[in-house]
Amino acid sequence: MQTEPRPTLAFSRRIENLQGSVARHILSRSQDADLISFAGGLPSPEMWQDLDLPRLPKSAFQYGPSEGDKSMRDLFAERLQGLGIACSPKRLIVTTGSQQGLDLLSKLFIDPGSPVGIESPTYLAALQNFQLFGAKLVALPTGSPLLSLEQWSELLQTERPRFVYLNPTYQNPSGACYSLEERRAVASLFDEYDTVLIEDDPYRDLHFEDAPPPPICSFLSRAPWAYLSSVSKILLPGLRIGCLAASEALYPHLLKLKQAADLHSSRTSQAIACHLLRDASSLRQRLARALASYRAKRDLMLSCLENDFHERARWLRPSGGMFVWLELAKQRDLFADLENCLSEGVAFMPGDPFFADSQRHGRYLRLNFTHPSSEQIELGLETIASQLFD
Amino acid sequence: MQTEPRPTLAFSRRIENLQGSVARHILSRSQDADLISFAGGLPSPEMWQDLDLPRLPKSAFQYGPSEGDKSMRDLFAERLQGLGIACSPKRLIVTTGSQQGLDLLSKLFIDPGSPVGIESPTYLAALQNFQLFGAKLVALPTGSPLLSLEQWSELLQTERPRFVYLNPTYQNPSGACYSLEERRAVASLFDEYDTVLIEDDPYRDLHFEDAPPPPICSFLSRAPWAYLSSVSKILLPGLRIGCLAASEALYPHLLKLKQAADLHSSRTSQAIACHLLRDASSLRQRLARALASYRAKRDLMLSCLENDFHERARWLRPSGGMFVWLELAKQRDLFADLENCLSEGVAFMPGDPFFADSQRHGRYLRLNFTHPSSEQIELGLETIASQLFD
Repeated sequence: MQTEPRPTLAFSRRIENLQGSVARHILSRSQDADLISFAGGLPSPEMWQDLDLPRLPKSAFQYGPSEGDKSMRDLFAERLQGLGIACSPKRLIVTTGSQQGLDLLSKLFIDPGSPVGIESPTYLAALQNFQLFGAKLVALPTGSPLLSLEQWSELLQTERPRFVYLNPTYQNPSGACYSLEERRAVASLFDEYDTVLIEDDPYRDLHFEDAPPPPICSFLSRAPWAYLSSVSKILLPGLRIGCLAASEALYPHLLKLKQAADLHSSRTSQAIACHLLRDASSLRQRLARALASYRAKRDLMLSCLENDFHERARWLRPSGGMFVWLELAKQRDLFADLENCLSEGVAFMPGDPFFADSQRHGRYLRLNFTHPSSEQIELGLETIASQLFD
Repeated sequence: MQTEPRPTLAFSRRIENLQGSVARHILSRSQDADLISFAGGLPSPEMWQDLDLPRLPKSAFQYGPSEGDKSMRDLFAERLQGLGIACSPKRLIVTTGSQQGLDLLSKLFIDPGSPVGIESPTYLAALQNFQLFGAKLVALPTGSPLLSLEQWSELLQTERPRFVYLNPTYQNPSGACYSLEERRAVASLFDEYDTVLIEDDPYRDLHFEDAPPPPICSFLSRAPWAYLSSVSKILLPGLRIGCLAASEALYPHLLKLKQAADLHSSRTSQAIACHLLRDASSLRQRLARALASYRAKRDLMLSCLENDFHERARWLRPSGGMFVWLELAKQRDLFADLENCLSEGVAFMPGDPFFADSQRHGRYLRLNFTHPSSEQIELGLETIASQLFD
């Protein structure tokens, strides 16, 4: 319908910060059912084989409360209390997935130029959302050992971030998991400086060895906090049901922001999620089955890496989550490599977009092991290795 | 967990603009099943009696595309094309209800102080969202005849709004419906000034007499546009499924904003909505049944008003939608009246929050007729009248 440039079309300034996701680009390139994709973070469909869905209650058909259905909030509150977070159902919002929780928190905290503390690398879609609202990203140094508490302390004091966003349990993309001591140390630092903690915890249940330590939020005594969880990794991502719990000072604003964003989350999705969460023994069984499969696929990926990437890259053995984070010995143009791999039917995520800086590192790849099959893992890693090293 | 004021907790400036909804306040006051509520905009549950839901396809369980499932977009595109809007499925986003479409459009267009054209009164939650993002509201005069095209023309030229938001078909709250000639005139005005039109059209199918004229968007030849629709009024509001269609210049940004907001809308909700929309004959039957009931309740409300509010108020006979908009002859403190009515078990919406100005008009009430039963309409209006006039 448009024929010439229109001088009056003026977008908001934030649109200059709007970035598409590399993952989306890959997805759009890959409607091909044969594609071996290490790029996304999809659960394996074996998670929902033999799944019984409920007859939906009529109440799920009508408009509902912005904070979410009481039965859904009760179930989430129970889970959080089990993790040591003192959170009543009245401090919970049922969100359209964790991602919406991030959007509400960005709206609550971020003006153009507001400092926001993050790990670098960190969850790509969190970065994108914070940048959309104009955040000035402050990277807190992580590594091995994870924390440089003195540097954190200095940054929290000098930069005074509006909040710090952490994904301390099987982090996306690095797979790293904070120890109990590190969690306690972070919590007391945040308490000391009254720094707002946003803890994103979607992978907690996907542990292949011991269960992870409790959330950092559970160790806070004074600092304001928000805790994000989701049913996407343990039930069905297609439901788009997550949970945003927050301390008293944040909650009423977040609830109004949720109302303004979409009135409330799907009640049919909530009814299905409640049904599936309530049946704890089936949930445990399905999760155990998925974990056994994910663990086997992680081990297979690690042994393939040992064969195909030996001395050309290094990686941590992730004790949970969905990803192996690969650091190459030599810098490469991984976006060009991706295009070549895609033409051979294999996808991976180049690591650069996960960093807070816009630097070209050219040394990191994120590889998902939960969605591809064992055969695809073997074949796909060979393809990537031959593309990168031959 | 909090013991003293915390000087470091800094929210974004937009939080100063964050307003709760009066409707929400009323809802929270009214968990009482006996409450007669004219306050909300709920469909009647008779809409979904005898409803057959599908077995959900496994594809609905996994993560999906940000723009929504293809089958859902195809169905929405078909509807829009039937209304004369030249819109392919590739210019559609499946949103978590129309409200989310408004949120995405606010993000796309509104910086603090950006001029935004609206009708006054207009849809409350649209106002709230525009204000949250800091819009400077420019009220376009409406009334009877609806449009003062010269004044519109002057305002579009001098104020140069980033967009104009219209709800031209059975408007919430006024019930007004633009004629075919008015739609054509508005469209050519917007084409002339390249003004972006956002047309919100949730009530189109709820017509009690002739079908309404086509959307204003269908008459545009040049101006950028976005069109919001929803299944909430014709299927199930609990699904939270709406549709945002937009012209070429807007669409790619809106799609990225949708991705950043919540990745994508519930796929189980989309699967249910597709199933119900595809069965056109059942849909027609259920809609016809609902319309017969809504029409009868509108007529009952109008005759009760004739009895109870004669010479104390005036109102238009709405030819569609969900509301009667009452203008009192004398100004009153309608918020105090509301509290008194609530204590007698009756709710209504005071009209002031629907206006762009923050003036105390004290002369308008919005009354919903679709959700209360016939008995409740009679009894409830008597209660309001005796509260206001005795």
